Amino acid sequence: MKFLTYLYKEKESIGILKNNSVIGFDNVFKSIGEKNPPRTMLELIDYLDDCKLDIIKKCIDKEGIETIPINNIKIEAPIPYPKRNVFCLGKNYIEHAREIKITRIAGNGIPEVPIYFTKAASPAVGTADNIEFSREITNQVDYEVELAVIIGKDGKNIKKEDAEEYIFGYTIINDVSARDLQGKHIQWFKGKSLDTFCPMGPYIVHKTEVPFPVNLDISCTVNGEVRQKSNTKNLIFDIPYIISDLSKGITLKAGDIISTGTPSGVGMGFTPIKVLKQGDIVECSIEKIGTLVNKVVELH
Amino acid sequence: MKFLTYLYKEKESIGILKNNSVIGFDNVFKSIGEKNPPRTMLELIDYLDDCKLDIIKKCIDKEGIETIPINNIKIEAPIPYPKRNVFCLGKNYIEHAREIKITRIAGNGIPEVPIYFTKAASPAVGTADNIEFSREITNQVDYEVELAVIIGKDGKNIKKEDAEEYIFGYTIINDVSARDLQGKHIQWFKGKSLDTFCPMGPYIVHKTEVPFPVNLDISCTVNGEVRQKSNTKNLIFDIPYIISDLSKGITLKAGDIISTGTPSGVGMGFTPIKVLKQGDIVECSIEKIGTLVNKVVELH
Repeated sequence: MKFLTYLYKEKESIGILKNNSVIGFDNVFKSIGEKNPPRTMLELIDYLDDCKLDIIKKCIDKEGIETIPINNIKIEAPIPYPKRNVFCLGKNYIEHAREIKITRIAGNGIPEVPIYFTKAASPAVGTADNIEFSREITNQVDYEVELAVIIGKDGKNIKKEDAEEYIFGYTIINDVSARDLQGKHIQWFKGKSLDTFCPMGPYIVHKTEVPFPVNLDISCTVNGEVRQKSNTKNLIFDIPYIISDLSKGITLKAGDIISTGTPSGVGMGFTPIKVLKQGDIVECSIEKIGTLVNKVVELH
Repeated sequence: MKFLTYLYKEKESIGILKNNSVIGFDNVFKSIGEKNPPRTMLELIDYLDDCKLDIIKKCIDKEGIETIPINNIKIEAPIPYPKRNVFCLGKNYIEHAREIKITRIAGNGIPEVPIYFTKAASPAVGTADNIEFSREITNQVDYEVELAVIIGKDGKNIKKEDAEEYIFGYTIINDVSARDLQGKHIQWFKGKSLDTFCPMGPYIVHKTEVPFPVNLDISCTVNGEVRQKSNTKNLIFDIPYIISDLSKGITLKAGDIISTGTPSGVGMGFTPIKVLKQGDIVECSIEKIGTLVNKVVELH
């Protein structure tokens, strides 16, 4: 099942994708005779369990349930206002760790432990929204397609073998990065956190639709040219390891988002480097999830 | 005026400190004949302006307004659930930048631009709460007293000369740090973000009580021994600079928290290093704000 947050008639709602239509949770709840539907993705994550998921699955297959054609809505980031910054991993694909050299890791650049940083994402932007920047602030804007894991329930010191239980689903994040700021400020946070630098979506795919361990093709194109192409099985630190390691001493919470790192092919890895510019179209795709499309706009 | 978040009869409320008592905002509002008092510090920050501040000031000086003795409440972190991670500065006092060497800065270790990272602080803990850690996760827990600036209204690309306008007030943060994790993971986030590692408070002092620029004595003791002692005038990047620089391309939001960095004297700066252990009492004090006291507890 694919969940989304959308605008319809100026109202923000959450719903389920069904072919080329959306079923709002208000209609899902009407159809199963329940009141007080979850109004946001964070409320849905708190609400949903296996039993409720089954009921909802049956409900959306019913004839006659009210749907909205997808062309009539505006898709937003599935979690436009995360409760905390997005947890991110740096250098989590070997070829990417080798291609980028601004990060002060000794030796061959392959990290021996996960590198965690965060990205402000409040609001996160959706597919079809713009990635905006000003040349007064940065001249090196880069893309990074990443598989993002959405946490489904609170947990601390989680064992690797229990990790899947703590997952709600998966989405795509473009970890847009101002490379000049990322290098200059030493810690990466600022260069990763400019307004609009966290495109997310278009959907959250529930974990029941993605076999574990997660082996999904992942790619990114700029103006149709393939720049990144890999599979999430190539993560250096895989999802169970990340959830287990990150939760050592830190309670992960329902609704938290972990962006698992990007494969090789970022603009910074080319000689000469390729930076994003006005009008570029960046498309981030992950198998079973979809494609997140954003246009680059330079502010004046 | 000093604002606080507190528990009284198992209910979380916000109020104003008056001598050794607290006036709840429900009583303040009753007294001025208004309805719907702000229920959280974040709501108060959105609500308050100069005019309302004047009305409230007069109100709390009235005879007969209902107060609660401070001994009858439990003080919580003033913002127990910030909307985003706390923005933090690394190495923002010269002597501290020199004393600590795990941070991969070339040359004499004095940064040429602010170093920003973030700290998960959801929940932040209050004065009298414990700083907890397990020896299975870290063996190098350290204290860092810091002046924290609370943002009062949204702003982006803020000019240095306008910075004060965007401030709501000031509090104390102990930027508790697991030095072994901070060094091992290269980016500092994980070592700064273990559960309970963000003691905050005890109060937010409104900016009208702190002359600008902010020159406040700042100190930290461990079991009564003075470890850190400086003044916020010694910040390498001062508050107007930070607000201006951080807001370049990033919208700062009402309720955001910026922890401005710690002076020299952290445990990691001693030879041999001094780490926190079971039963230690850490007291962080800043002139005009108060003292944030936390006990260290080792989990088993």
